[in-house]
Amino acid sequence: MQQASSWFFELQKIICDRFEQVERAHADSESAAASKKTRTTRRAGLEGEGGGGIMAKFKQGAVFEKAGVNCSEVFGILGEKAQGSLSSSKELPGLEQDPRFWAAGISLVCHMRNPLVPAVHMNTRMFWTPIRCWFGGGTDLNPAIEFAEDTEHFHAVLKGCCDRYSPGFHQSCKEWADRYFFIRHRNRPRGVGGVFFDDLNSGDWERDFAFVKSLGIAFLDSWLPIVERRQTMAWTDSHRETQLAHRGAYVEFNLIQDRGTRFGLETGHDPDAVLMSLPPLASWP
Amino acid sequence: MQQASSWFFELQKIICDRFEQVERAHADSESAAASKKTRTTRRAGLEGEGGGGIMAKFKQGAVFEKAGVNCSEVFGILGEKAQGSLSSSKELPGLEQDPRFWAAGISLVCHMRNPLVPAVHMNTRMFWTPIRCWFGGGTDLNPAIEFAEDTEHFHAVLKGCCDRYSPGFHQSCKEWADRYFFIRHRNRPRGVGGVFFDDLNSGDWERDFAFVKSLGIAFLDSWLPIVERRQTMAWTDSHRETQLAHRGAYVEFNLIQDRGTRFGLETGHDPDAVLMSLPPLASWP
Repeated sequence: MQQASSWFFELQKIICDRFEQVERAHADSESAAASKKTRTTRRAGLEGEGGGGIMAKFKQGAVFEKAGVNCSEVFGILGEKAQGSLSSSKELPGLEQDPRFWAAGISLVCHMRNPLVPAVHMNTRMFWTPIRCWFGGGTDLNPAIEFAEDTEHFHAVLKGCCDRYSPGFHQSCKEWADRYFFIRHRNRPRGVGGVFFDDLNSGDWERDFAFVKSLGIAFLDSWLPIVERRQTMAWTDSHRETQLAHRGAYVEFNLIQDRGTRFGLETGHDPDAVLMSLPPLASWP
Repeated sequence: MQQASSWFFELQKIICDRFEQVERAHADSESAAASKKTRTTRRAGLEGEGGGGIMAKFKQGAVFEKAGVNCSEVFGILGEKAQGSLSSSKELPGLEQDPRFWAAGISLVCHMRNPLVPAVHMNTRMFWTPIRCWFGGGTDLNPAIEFAEDTEHFHAVLKGCCDRYSPGFHQSCKEWADRYFFIRHRNRPRGVGGVFFDDLNSGDWERDFAFVKSLGIAFLDSWLPIVERRQTMAWTDSHRETQLAHRGAYVEFNLIQDRGTRFGLETGHDPDAVLMSLPPLASWP
C-alpha cells in the first residue's frame, strides 16, 4: 500500500514538471502558469476516518487554461451509498460486515486554452478492502474538434502499453472506455475514448502495479505530442464556442455519471479537490 | 387533468409575453430577445408511453441572457429508477403493481445578463398515479450578489400567496425550500430560498389547483419588480466573475441533486428540454 501511494505522489511530481516545461516553452515569461499545490483533507467523520492529498492546479496559463493533478490517500469506513459507487463490476460480499477501506490514487484533468488542443483525463488508483484489493484507472481524450491523426496516436501509445502487460488487454480496456465514457442522456460518447479498467487483480500484485506505473508514463507520451502539434495552430471564435459547448457536456458526464466524482463527494473529500475536473468556463448555449 | 395541463400552457404564454415586454423595454429594437418556441417530445419506449411539450427559449437578450420556460405533459410506465425520484416524502405502495403515471407542469429558469439581477427558478406540476394524485412546485431566488431588500420582497410576495391558501403554509414551504435548495457537498444554500412543496393533496382538488394557479402569477410579482430595480445598475467584470462562479454551483446542484432533472432524464424526455435550466456560461475558476 505504501509503495503504491508513494508512486502516485511521485507521478504527480513528474507530470507537473512536464506540464510546467510545456507552459514555459509556449508562454511569455510572465504568463507561464506554474502549478500551485494545496494540501487537501478529507472530512473525518468517525475515529479511524481520514486522509488527504495534494491538489496541484494550473490556472490561466498560455497552454493550460485549467489543469488539476490531484493525489490523495484516504481510509475509513464505507457508507452504504459509497459502497455502491466503489466497484464497477465485482460484488463485494462481506463488505457490510467489515466496511473498512483504503484508497490512493492520482487523478488529472486538463482543459486547454487552444480549442484545437484536446482536453484529457487520466486516473489510476489502488483500492483496498478486507475482502479484496485491486487497481483501476484509465485515460480518455476529449477533443472539441477532432483530428483523426491525434486520435490514432493516442490509441496507439496506449495499445503499446497495454500489450506489454497482456495481449488482448488493450481491446478490453478500449471497449470498457467506450462503454464508460458515454453520455447516456445524450446518447453519444463524451470524447474519442481511450482505456478504462477496474478490479484489476491478476494474482500477481507486482506485475499489476508495474502496469499501473507504466500507464502513468504512457499517458504523457500519448498526449503531450498532440499538445505540441496543435498548440501553435490558429483558432477562431467559432472554435472557442464549440469548445465551451463541448465542455458543457463534459460537466454533465462528470456530475451525473462519473463514479470517481460520486465516490469523492459521498466519502466527504474536499469538494474543490473532487470537482477540480470541471472546466474553467463552459457553455450551454 | 385536462384543466391542469391547459393552465400550465396558458401560464407559459402569460410569462413569455411579460418577459418579452421586459426585453423590449430595455433593449434596442434589434437586440430584444423574443422567445423561440420548439415542440419537444418524449422518447416513446413502449406502447402507451409518450408525451411532449413546448420549450420556449430566450437567448442572448439585453435582459435575459438565457431563459427557458418549458411546458410538458407526459405519461407512461414508471421505471424503477424514476419511481425513486418521483415523490419526495410519500411512499407509494402498490406502484410496483400498476406503475402508470401522468404528469404535466411548467418549469422555468432565467439566467440574467446583468450580474446584479438575480437568476430565478419556478416550477409547478401535477402528478397522477393510480394510487394518488398531487401537486408540487416551488420557486427560488439565486442572486450572485445579494441585495437584502430584493430577498425581502421576494419572500413577502410568496408569503402573501401562501397565506391566502392556508395560514402556516408559507412557513413550511419556506423551510422545505431551505432544505431542498441546499448544495449538500458544498454545505451551503444554492441561493436565498423561496418556497417548495410536494405531495399537495388536501382532499379539495379545486382549492389546491387554485393555489397552484395563484403561485404562478405571484411568481411574476415576486421577481419582475426586482428585475426592473437592478437591470439598469452598472456592473463590473468582478461582478460578472462572481456571477459565473455562482452559476457553476447552480449547475452542480441541478445535475447532482435536482429531482426534476433526474426524473426528466430517467423518463427519457428530450435532454435539451430537461437541461434548459443550465446557464449560458458558467465557470469553475
